[in-house]
Order: sequence, then structure tokens, then C-alpha cells
Amino acid sequence: MFENIVKKHSFLCVGLDSDIEKIPAFLHNEKDPVFEFNKRIIDATHQYAVAYKPNIAFYECYGIKGWASLEATVSYIKEYYPDLFVIADAKRGDIGNTSKMYAKAFLENLPFDAITVAPYMGEDSVKPFLTYNDKWVILLALTSNKGADDFQYHDEDGIKLFSRVLSVSKKWGTINNMMYVVGATRAETLTEIRKVIPDHFLLVPGVGAQGGSLEDVARYGMNNKCGLLVNSSRGIIFADNSENFDEVAGEKAKEMQLEMEKYLTKRNLI
Amino acid sequence: MFENIVKKHSFLCVGLDSDIEKIPAFLHNEKDPVFEFNKRIIDATHQYAVAYKPNIAFYECYGIKGWASLEATVSYIKEYYPDLFVIADAKRGDIGNTSKMYAKAFLENLPFDAITVAPYMGEDSVKPFLTYNDKWVILLALTSNKGADDFQYHDEDGIKLFSRVLSVSKKWGTINNMMYVVGATRAETLTEIRKVIPDHFLLVPGVGAQGGSLEDVARYGMNNKCGLLVNSSRGIIFADNSENFDEVAGEKAKEMQLEMEKYLTKRNLI
Repeated sequence: MFENIVKKHSFLCVGLDSDIEKIPAFLHNEKDPVFEFNKRIIDATHQYAVAYKPNIAFYECYGIKGWASLEATVSYIKEYYPDLFVIADAKRGDIGNTSKMYAKAFLENLPFDAITVAPYMGEDSVKPFLTYNDKWVILLALTSNKGADDFQYHDEDGIKLFSRVLSVSKKWGTINNMMYVVGATRAETLTEIRKVIPDHFLLVPGVGAQGGSLEDVARYGMNNKCGLLVNSSRGIIFADNSENFDEVAGEKAKEMQLEMEKYLTKRNLI
Repeated sequence: MFENIVKKHSFLCVGLDSDIEKIPAFLHNEKDPVFEFNKRIIDATHQYAVAYKPNIAFYECYGIKGWASLEATVSYIKEYYPDLFVIADAKRGDIGNTSKMYAKAFLENLPFDAITVAPYMGEDSVKPFLTYNDKWVILLALTSNKGADDFQYHDEDGIKLFSRVLSVSKKWGTINNMMYVVGATRAETLTEIRKVIPDHFLLVPGVGAQGGSLEDVARYGMNNKCGLLVNSSRGIIFADNSENFDEVAGEKAKEMQLEMEKYLTKRNLI
């Protein structure tokens, strides 16, 4: 991961939350409008990004057709841009024998490199995802939404639930097969989080549409292997809905890449 | 729900964890072996059950083909046995605009009556599932697996996380659109749970293969509207793998129904 970040001067992950109702109207004439949209977004942004993250809900929503778009998208990335890291943002998690089936779905039958997993059901719900070589679990720790306050931030005797999730779960895997989701809207908490997991990579959603600041994330979350994948979805893929939507997406991705390059330079990582 | 329980003298939910590798070999010649398996299981068990619960992992695992089997199964139940309650055991949950897409997938584009949802991301991750008339959220509270000890059972000042999940989340919906998952392997905890949510229905997995006792679940969990849906998956659907697998499944379901009838009678509910 770090090698690619150094090579591309970027730690950008582009979120493919490709809602069919939000993609440019002219694409609706295509045979598979969502795949066509994704393909053009990927072609226009790949040089500025190190990762892509389809959010599975936006595909699953359309059943068989949605799965076809998802399969086509992941296969396209793996065929044309094999150095890109592809994350299934699925937030799955179930008892052991069931998690095994989800792992098979995304890490074996589809060529994803990583899957986001929910921690609530504990170790045996996460372990089946950790049995694949060179594949990653990205465990939810502190999410970017308001509802994070309901349980994740719940503090008893100075230990918040998300902190407990980090300290307990870090023993389940290694820094080479586990990352954590930490929302950019909580960037100030990154200092606290880095005390518990100094070396793990973090997948950081919430920059852009949700209000998080890239500068703060870099300041509080970056480690000596960068340790960050910062995601932007709507801010890039839906920046424009004309026939040039892909060019505009490319410009937005480039803007973020240039800002990231600045922070990587500042830390002497490139 | 209660009306159907009274009518059928049963609070049985049959879990359709229809792993293609475990279904009888002779079905592999069918065009859609998983749907054919489910169809025969449903035909043989429907008179003893009030609900069916396909676990989505076992379908998603096979991508487009799996979704076709899932769609065919739910449609079959709704067409031939419209009084049955059908649960998508999906354990989904994401930020608001994404949960909305999952809700659409299962409660709108597929005719499920309910979906299981993970609580970790809090209120705004659950609310989108609660906007449909006559549809239900079944929130994970205390699961039946060993990993439940990692976070759910974590106790600070006498309040365990699952208990906090119950008391916070019960305000998000009503007893007519929310249920909770409570594992049968923790039946002794049902007394404690019933203090927090006396009136909600509980979906109880873990009887049978996982070691939970139906008698204990009925003793500690039943309320004056029954308030229980007890799930059995492997113990029914994989009881036999000969050509008569469906008959054997029917017998197993009947056994459970008869035991349930006994507990319903004891409480004067039928």
C-alpha cells in the first residue's frame, strides 16, 4: 500500500456510491448505465487514486442487475489497473459459518482486496475474513455519522466503545491484514486513536460532503507509512452531471491528490 | 404476528441458510438447485411455521445466481403462503443515505417483511429501515455466538452494551415495527432483557445446532403476546440429505411446533 502511495503521491480512495438516480441522464441509454458511469469515472481518476471503494448498498439495491454492475466494475479495475486496491464497502458481520460465506462472496468469488466489517458480533464474526492471503479486513471503529454518538462514543470510566473495539480487535489480525474505519468528521479523535493503533492503516470517510477536513486528518492521523486512505465519494463522482462529468471528476480527484502530495511532502514521506 | 401464532400453534421461524454445498446432491441437476431446495423445504414445513428467514450470505456468496435464487424464494413464499412473515437476515447498517439503499433493496425491491440490522452505527443508520408501513427492523442485541462476549457483554457499572442498545434503540421505533435478535444460547439473560423491553418481539436464533434450549427460551422470554420467534436452520433444513429430505424437514419442524404448542398452552395463549 505504502509503495503505491509513494509512487502516486496520493492516498486517495474514490468511493463508487454510484446511485443510478444520480448519474448523468444520458448514460441511462447504455446497456449497463452504472458500470458505464463507473468505467468513465475510473478512467478519469485512476492516476490520482490508490484505491476504489464501491459501496455495496448502491448495487444490491437493484438485485441481479446491480450485482452485474458490481462484478463488471471490480473486474474492470483488476483487468486494467491491477495495482489499485479495491474495497467492498459492505459492513458485513455474522456468526462464523455465515461470515465465511460473506468472505467467499467478496474476497474469493469477486476479486476485492478488502471488505469493511462491523465489530458488534465479536471475534468469530471477523476471523473468517482474515483467512485469505493478501486480503484485508477494514473494521468499523469510529464512523462519520451522527449515530456514532449513540454507542461508539459511549464512555465508561474513560474508555469509549470505539477505543475498546480497537484494543480488543487489534489482536485478531496484524497491521498487514487489518485496517480501521475512522470518520474524518471526528478528526480530533485521531490523536487518541493513534495511541492505541499507531501502525495500522485507517480508511477515512467523511471528507467533503460530510464536512471532514483533509488537513486535520493528515495532521492527526498520518504515521510514518502514511497509514491513511482518505475516501471521497459524492465530492468526486457527482461533482458534475453533464457529458463531461468524468473530466470534472478527474479534476476534483487531482485537487485532492495535490493536497495530499503537500502533506506527504511535509512529513518527508515522498 | 400474534394472530398467526395463535392460528398455527407455533412461533417457529425456519432459517433458509441454504448452502449449495450442503443441499442433497440429486438437486444439483435442477436449473436453480437452491430455489428447488427451498421450495421443497417450504412446502413441507409451512404448516408448522409462522416465518422464514433466508440468511443473505448464503445467496450473496454466489453473486447473480445467488440473487436469482433469493428472489425466486421470497416471491414463492409471498405468492403461495402470503400469511408467512419473511425476514431478510442481512445484518446491514450504514450511514443514512446508504442504509436507505439497503432498505430499498430488501423492503421495497424484494418483498421481505423484515430485515435484521446491526446497531453499531446508531440511530441514523437504523431509521431508514423504519420508514416503511408494515415492515420491521430486527436489531441485533445479544447474538448467539461466542464473540458476543467481546463487546455485547462488556459490563461497565452494571450496564452491559446489549442492554444499552435495547434501552437507547427502543425509542427509535415501536413494538409494531421493531424486534430484537436475542440468542437462545444466552437464555438466562432473557429475564434481564424482558425488564428493558417487556413487549417487543424477539427473534431467537441458536436453538438446535448452536445448543440453545427451546424450553428455557419460552420460560424466560415469552410474554402475553408470545413475543417470540424461535429460529431453527440446520436442525430442520439439513436434518436429512436423501431424496426425502423435505419429509424429514417437515417432521423436525412438526416436532418443534408441538413443543411450542405445549408452551403456548401452558401460558394460556391458545
